[in-house]
Amino acid sequence: MPAYSHILLAVDFSRTAEAVAEQALLLRKTFDARLSMVHVVEFVPVDLSSELVMPTDLEIDQELLDQADKRLRELGEKYGVPESERFVSQGSTRREILRIAEEQSVDLIVLGSHGREGIQRLLGSTANAVLHGAPCDVLAVRIRD
Amino acid sequence: MPAYSHILLAVDFSRTAEAVAEQALLLRKTFDARLSMVHVVEFVPVDLSSELVMPTDLEIDQELLDQADKRLRELGEKYGVPESERFVSQGSTRREILRIAEEQSVDLIVLGSHGREGIQRLLGSTANAVLHGAPCDVLAVRIRD
Repeated sequence: MPAYSHILLAVDFSRTAEAVAEQALLLRKTFDARLSMVHVVEFVPVDLSSELVMPTDLEIDQELLDQADKRLRELGEKYGVPESERFVSQGSTRREILRIAEEQSVDLIVLGSHGREGIQRLLGSTANAVLHGAPCDVLAVRIRD
Repeated sequence: MPAYSHILLAVDFSRTAEAVAEQALLLRKTFDARLSMVHVVEFVPVDLSSELVMPTDLEIDQELLDQADKRLRELGEKYGVPESERFVSQGSTRREILRIAEEQSVDLIVLGSHGREGIQRLLGSTANAVLHGAPCDVLAVRIRD
């Protein structure tokens, strides 16, 4: 039976992120697995009158990335995840998580799921999006809102 | 850190179900957890001219349920899951999985995910549906089509 050997924890820095991280840490310990972490700074392309417009304020972009770097470093130190296993990325959260999962030959992605209903269900969630097209298993950790 | 104590394996009797079951068996062993199995015979309500019409051929319904019972019993014997932990249900797959997960105080649902893209992604999958509103964590095991 295939145990997990490389886990990718998707981190969103919300106040509920800790509960998700705890499951990833439990599985790392249980399976003696390698653990990587990723945080994606979501950049949404804005489509105005058929032209693809991207946010252009490079200073703000850089600040967001620097901030994400800093917070991921703090978490990495807290959880014992070395720098080489920490990934800050930008763009579409789904795409970036799947890209890194593929590049790093991850066999389990761990992320939070809000279990939303109604309109939020239709809008979808990151967990939902990642599930589709994931190259590996996905553990959605239920977050109590 | 919360280990899993009661796992619910959703079984669809497809030829890929074995791979999904293997992950559930691995986690049962790893966490010394209780394992339950559920199979849902999907009954789709058909809405004709605003009247809710249900399939009425009770003999066929009963045959499907008996067949499901038999197959789940075979799997249960193979995997060492006692009768009291085997559930055959009918109706909406999502609703029944979530209902049993709630009733049985399950803390992890394990099911297969095809990682579909395109139109199939829009149509959604059981894994996707179960993720929303799940009272607990959900492990979607990637099935290689």
